[in-house]
Amino acid sequence: MPQPHIFPSFAGEFFSRISYMEKAVLITIGDEILSGNTVDTNSNFIASELKNIGIKVVQIFTISDEIDTIKNTLSEAFQLGDLVITTGGLGPTRDDKTKKALAEFFNDEIALDEVTFNHLKGYMERRGRADILERNKEQAFVPTKSIVFQNHFGTAPCMMMELDGKLSYSLPGVPYEVKPLIKDQIIPYLQEKFNLNYIHSRIVSVVGIPESILADTIEDWELALPENMSLSYLPVGTRVKLRITASGDNEEALKQQTEDKIQKLLPLIKDHVIAVSEDKIENILAEILTERKLTISTAESCTGGELAKMITSVSGSSKYFLGGMVAYATEKKIKILNVSRETVDQFTVVSEQVAQEMAKGCQELFDTHISLSTTGVAGPGKGEDGKDIGTVFYTIRIKDQEVTSKLYMPHLERVDFMDFVSQKVIQDLVGLLISQ
Amino acid sequence: MPQPHIFPSFAGEFFSRISYMEKAVLITIGDEILSGNTVDTNSNFIASELKNIGIKVVQIFTISDEIDTIKNTLSEAFQLGDLVITTGGLGPTRDDKTKKALAEFFNDEIALDEVTFNHLKGYMERRGRADILERNKEQAFVPTKSIVFQNHFGTAPCMMMELDGKLSYSLPGVPYEVKPLIKDQIIPYLQEKFNLNYIHSRIVSVVGIPESILADTIEDWELALPENMSLSYLPVGTRVKLRITASGDNEEALKQQTEDKIQKLLPLIKDHVIAVSEDKIENILAEILTERKLTISTAESCTGGELAKMITSVSGSSKYFLGGMVAYATEKKIKILNVSRETVDQFTVVSEQVAQEMAKGCQELFDTHISLSTTGVAGPGKGEDGKDIGTVFYTIRIKDQEVTSKLYMPHLERVDFMDFVSQKVIQDLVGLLISQ
Repeated sequence: MPQPHIFPSFAGEFFSRISYMEKAVLITIGDEILSGNTVDTNSNFIASELKNIGIKVVQIFTISDEIDTIKNTLSEAFQLGDLVITTGGLGPTRDDKTKKALAEFFNDEIALDEVTFNHLKGYMERRGRADILERNKEQAFVPTKSIVFQNHFGTAPCMMMELDGKLSYSLPGVPYEVKPLIKDQIIPYLQEKFNLNYIHSRIVSVVGIPESILADTIEDWELALPENMSLSYLPVGTRVKLRITASGDNEEALKQQTEDKIQKLLPLIKDHVIAVSEDKIENILAEILTERKLTISTAESCTGGELAKMITSVSGSSKYFLGGMVAYATEKKIKILNVSRETVDQFTVVSEQVAQEMAKGCQELFDTHISLSTTGVAGPGKGEDGKDIGTVFYTIRIKDQEVTSKLYMPHLERVDFMDFVSQKVIQDLVGLLISQ
Repeated sequence: MPQPHIFPSFAGEFFSRISYMEKAVLITIGDEILSGNTVDTNSNFIASELKNIGIKVVQIFTISDEIDTIKNTLSEAFQLGDLVITTGGLGPTRDDKTKKALAEFFNDEIALDEVTFNHLKGYMERRGRADILERNKEQAFVPTKSIVFQNHFGTAPCMMMELDGKLSYSLPGVPYEVKPLIKDQIIPYLQEKFNLNYIHSRIVSVVGIPESILADTIEDWELALPENMSLSYLPVGTRVKLRITASGDNEEALKQQTEDKIQKLLPLIKDHVIAVSEDKIENILAEILTERKLTISTAESCTGGELAKMITSVSGSSKYFLGGMVAYATEKKIKILNVSRETVDQFTVVSEQVAQEMAKGCQELFDTHISLSTTGVAGPGKGEDGKDIGTVFYTIRIKDQEVTSKLYMPHLERVDFMDFVSQKVIQDLVGLLISQ
């Protein structure tokens, strides 16, 4: 674990005064998120990493890069949590005012830190930029009461400050810089310094039952959960994820407690459970395919590569995913996937029959046990064949058996449509494999 | 435009008291985001839709589903903005307390609304669920001082309330339900009722110049921007997007003003500008390919379908994207893309030579002007050929010319790696096409 650089004026004795670290508040600074230009993925990553070490994010503020707003929000955040993490607002450009706000809030001054400056110089030199501009040098100015965690993938360092026995970390906003700072430096640091509570959580994936009926079915079970456990409903497409979370100081006891409760839950909804434990449907699929030594391939039209991407986003997927084809143009479906021209002429390209032939051709091309195909119109605008947008046929072929289904989702935006259909296809496949 | 249902006790005269609508605050309610389980995409969508009609999101709160927290946040939000939009916390399950908090905050009561109940009944019946549970019926209970916008894609209606001449809308949290409510109902409603300011914004995409040098280069230009205009730096991979935003009451004047400023900016950075106006790199590519009538295909290994997905996420991409191949297994690269076994044996599968042969084979298979190929190891875990993770070779082939490049990004997580590489490949292609 890389060691942070402790600035000489840092009040080093404060750790003895902090006995717990349970609640975190995140502050996202800058115009990118507020303007709708960028989706905030940092908060998601940080919240999930903190959860793993037993720290719960209780609130997230997304604010503009203005000194007064930053100071007011810091003050509110320190009231709500033991740990405050800010991201953004540390770039070298004019619209970043975070460091000034930090100094004012902590009643501190900004000074050039030689260690940080040398780190920065090395970072720039390795990138062939020996001429450090004044603007870059500014990045090595930090509050004098901070502990500095060097940034190995960018120019803005992470600064840790302390207030009344609570901690704040200020990070840059670029996700590629945030992730290693959190994962390799901040998390290990918190684990080393504090006795943290454990949080254990498991996910039960349920399909084929509406959320309201599900809630009625398991109401008595939910009401009987003890104080330290909670249940959340997380709908994803047509699947509902039930997340059971427990917190406490004994990891083994928590695991046992959660397992006991899940064993009581399963009989209540047994026909609808497709997986326990794994969260994402592509991970559930990975478990099944790996265990059964099955291979898979994809032939996509309207999902445009998203289906292959979902499957390959799982580490180790090269063991079962042999390949995929995005056959966008009709001629390519005919040439490469061996779809017959007569079938296209007779039934149009968005049809049950073409989906079936695509799956068959795909299975032969890649020589896999399973093949998946999609053909449809993601929209907007009518498809070339005159069918309405939002229609998709998909075939799941397992060895010599196949199931073809149709979806009609005209209200979805293009990318949502591609995501939704891919989710649904993999979910159906998981359902089929489990029932086999 | 669908008309909302006005509840009898709604104080209908308040519109005459509202003269402006400029600042919005978003509140995201529920555990999904805070726990790191779900990325908040609703805020992004809503902020961007509001920006189009001249309303600026000034702050976003993400809070837990607790009555006091919701009430306190509503109160803070009404101080910061003229318009408050909440999402989430309206599901039929136990963890949703938003409606109760709304009633308490607005000093109102919840009552069954017959119109909403009938809408709900119709919605359930169309889905073949004639037996409405008590729990579903609860969805038709709304505050008596609200205006109800019916939800056509889910069971929780949207409720509009008024406080001291400011408005709040409470929506469910499911993105598929949020989008049509915002786009088809709330935005047209706001446009009809208020005289809104226009916001005009344009993006200049810049590559090959670090953010700090860019900032120095255009500093004088930026300082000379008038009050109603602002500049933001939005880094995406190795590209920097400069967003120039102007607001005012005359749309035409704003457009002219922005255009004038951009014409003064371009000569300062001319060698680095790859596009003006379009935001996403795949849209920039779409413009160029459509204009020049060029077709494109992809052969992917480590990007696993993301490259094809990025290209096909643009509406109208079927005009130029003929198809893609995800050749994950080495044997499939040989069999389908015609990569020679000798090349693989001599240079390994992650090599410049294999990238080149993949691009060539892909161009022939799909018969396109342009082909793109990627071969690398996304990790984690060493690649089968022994090369370190994070290495990728990619070839861009335009007619009979080709460029092959290498990237080494070992610090990126798997999905980030796939995204980053795909962004970079398309960005390089755009650069090459522009310089031709």
